Amino acid sequence: MDTPKFSEGPCPIGRGLALVGDAWSMLILRDAGYGLTRFDQFRASLGIAPNILASRLKALTAAGLLEKRRYSERPPRDEYVITASGRDFLPVLLALGAWGGRHNGGGPLSYVVDAETGAMIDPLVIDRATGTPISERPLRLVVPE
Amino acid sequence: MDTPKFSEGPCPIGRGLALVGDAWSMLILRDAGYGLTRFDQFRASLGIAPNILASRLKALTAAGLLEKRRYSERPPRDEYVITASGRDFLPVLLALGAWGGRHNGGGPLSYVVDAETGAMIDPLVIDRATGTPISERPLRLVVPE
Repeated sequence: MDTPKFSEGPCPIGRGLALVGDAWSMLILRDAGYGLTRFDQFRASLGIAPNILASRLKALTAAGLLEKRRYSERPPRDEYVITASGRDFLPVLLALGAWGGRHNGGGPLSYVVDAETGAMIDPLVIDRATGTPISERPLRLVVPE
Repeated sequence: MDTPKFSEGPCPIGRGLALVGDAWSMLILRDAGYGLTRFDQFRASLGIAPNILASRLKALTAAGLLEKRRYSERPPRDEYVITASGRDFLPVLLALGAWGGRHNGGGPLSYVVDAETGAMIDPLVIDRATGTPISERPLRLVVPE
C-alpha cells in the first residue's frame, strides 16, 4: 500500500496502518511483546523468510516500534527490543486476537493471563469516557475540513 | 503470509490476521463499516488499484466479513455489505486508530463520535472481567499443549 499517502491522510486508522500495516509486522510486534528480541528467535517463531524478516525489522525500527541494540561486538550482532510505542500496540493486538478467536477459533488456542493474578484476560474495546463497549453504540465519522 | 498455517495455529492473533491480515483489507472493512458498499465507492475512497480491490473483496467475502448482494440485474451489479462478523472488527480498527493517532498523528485527524450523544469516542482496550486497561497489567502467554 501507499504508506506515505496514508501517513499524511486524516484517518488515524490509516496512520496506524502506515506504521504496522501487514500481518508479519504485527506478528513480529506480538513476539517482541512476549519477549523475543533476536533475529533467529523471530524466524523460528514465525517461519518467516529471512529477507522478509530483515525488511520488517528494519521498517519497525524506522517507525520507532522496535529499537536495535548491539548485544555482541565480536561477532557484531544486534537484537530488537520493543519500545514504549510498540508496547502500546499490544492491546490492539489482543483485541484483534479476541476477534480472531471468536470468528476463526476452532481447536485449542493460546491465551493471555494476568501474570500476577493468573486470571485469563478477555480484551474488550470500550469508550474511555463512558465505559461503554464500542460495539454497542451507533457511530458517526467526523472528517476534518 | 501463509494464511492456512496461521489459520490452523494456536494463536488467536494469527487466526484473526488469517482473515484480515493486510492494510487494504482493514481499510475496506473500515469503509464498509462507515456505510460504503459499492466497488466504485471503495475505489474512490481508497485510491486502490481495481485488481487489488477485487481480490480483497473476494477474500473478505470468502472470510464471511462482507456479503455480496446483487443490486442490479441489468446490468448485473453486486455490492458488498458488512456482516456481523465484519462489524465486530470495527472496535479493533478504532483501537488501532487511537494508537495511530497517538504515534503517527500530526495534523488534523478524523474522529468518531457517538451518533446519538455527539460525544467523541476514545477507544480503550480493557479486560472485560476487571475493567482494567490491558496496558496496565503484566501479561503472560499460555500456549496449549
